[in-house]
Amino acid sequence: MKRIKMVLEYDGSNYHGFQRQINAHTIQAQLESSINHLTGETVTVNAAGRTDAGVHALGQVIAFNTSARIPADKWTPALNSKLPDDIRILNSLEAAPDFHPQFDALKKSYVYLIYRQKSGASFYRKHALLNSENLDVAGMQRAARLLEGNHNFKAFCASGSSVKSFKRNVSLCRIINQEAWLKLEIEANGFLYNMIRIIMGTLLEVGRQRLTPEHILEILDSQDRNLAGSTVSPHGLYLKAVEYPEG
Amino acid sequence: MKRIKMVLEYDGSNYHGFQRQINAHTIQAQLESSINHLTGETVTVNAAGRTDAGVHALGQVIAFNTSARIPADKWTPALNSKLPDDIRILNSLEAAPDFHPQFDALKKSYVYLIYRQKSGASFYRKHALLNSENLDVAGMQRAARLLEGNHNFKAFCASGSSVKSFKRNVSLCRIINQEAWLKLEIEANGFLYNMIRIIMGTLLEVGRQRLTPEHILEILDSQDRNLAGSTVSPHGLYLKAVEYPEG
Repeated sequence: MKRIKMVLEYDGSNYHGFQRQINAHTIQAQLESSINHLTGETVTVNAAGRTDAGVHALGQVIAFNTSARIPADKWTPALNSKLPDDIRILNSLEAAPDFHPQFDALKKSYVYLIYRQKSGASFYRKHALLNSENLDVAGMQRAARLLEGNHNFKAFCASGSSVKSFKRNVSLCRIINQEAWLKLEIEANGFLYNMIRIIMGTLLEVGRQRLTPEHILEILDSQDRNLAGSTVSPHGLYLKAVEYPEG
Repeated sequence: MKRIKMVLEYDGSNYHGFQRQINAHTIQAQLESSINHLTGETVTVNAAGRTDAGVHALGQVIAFNTSARIPADKWTPALNSKLPDDIRILNSLEAAPDFHPQFDALKKSYVYLIYRQKSGASFYRKHALLNSENLDVAGMQRAARLLEGNHNFKAFCASGSSVKSFKRNVSLCRIINQEAWLKLEIEANGFLYNMIRIIMGTLLEVGRQRLTPEHILEILDSQDRNLAGSTVSPHGLYLKAVEYPEG
């Protein structure tokens, strides 16, 4: 029995998120079914992050156990040959038997993309948030930086979430302005449910000058979800990379 | 009665091409149905180019007659409010009563996109040709330039096409190499059926060094479709712009 660790990308547009569900087309179900086609085994795939419906991945990490005699690095072409072309394995290697992609992760990074032009928008509707409002980008950039550090992010978590602690360490939170694109880059040791989409929705309120950048600190302090902005579309969100102690 | 001219973009991924067909979801049928929802009229929409299934447009041009009292420039937001978000009107104006987007066109320009990296490919599978082969790009660039000018393009036309003449004036044919992307930019006074996709398939054979750049001239002279390369995927093809005498 070997434990295989893989890095993969996927276009989440046509999936009901990562996690297996009854009667829904999910990334996990597709991976497990393609592995079954390849080896005949019934495996359970663990992932670093359970991305929601419509969310994409550039560097999701998964792991599973297998008795198949496929060398670890050959898993990449082998599994790609069974997968639909909106899921692509980027690399594969043998991991420690107790490796868990979620619990062993030190840090995850996500990107949220906003496309700001009217021309071209029809091509990005499933891969970005479309927004052609005039935005105070400098204000958004200041507000984003204020979220960096150790904070209680309860105000930026979907209500009803049952986690032990709302404290997270956000090591990077930056807005990058590149021609037609506005990009949020965010890294943390963990994220609460809908946290990035609520942060983006709140930063957009700063962009609209309905909130000042400094309001972000008041919202953090309040721990009140109602004071933060709305949860924006999943289509702009990408799980970019996951960092582990072994590198 | 007014004649409205519009420039529009569309993501052709989910359509069976431009032209109306029985029992198929086409761009023309969608436009005519959305205009009908807006004004109650039954109109026929003419287009500059009847793009094939899966082909995209950045600047398709259409025209139709209407008795509706919508000012010409207000047609853009009005029709966009009825259209699905993979078709977007970019601008609209009133045209001469006899304006025809296809027959009045002086020149059309298309772009063909090839995505050459493995990472990221799952996001571009409907919007580019995916090709990660090692290609002789300089050879492809030389070959592309040889197609510029007045030529008989019969060898680059799908067989069985019943046109009066296979002569076309290609005013621009260039391969541009930009990081992960290879882009064919081509402009002509008209294109034969599948001409750009066959040109791209032939240029790829030059890239693979199965043909020399100079073979392109022999293929042109032969007027033999069998000597040219294969017809590549529609997903990389974009109708970029159409030029008219009035500008």
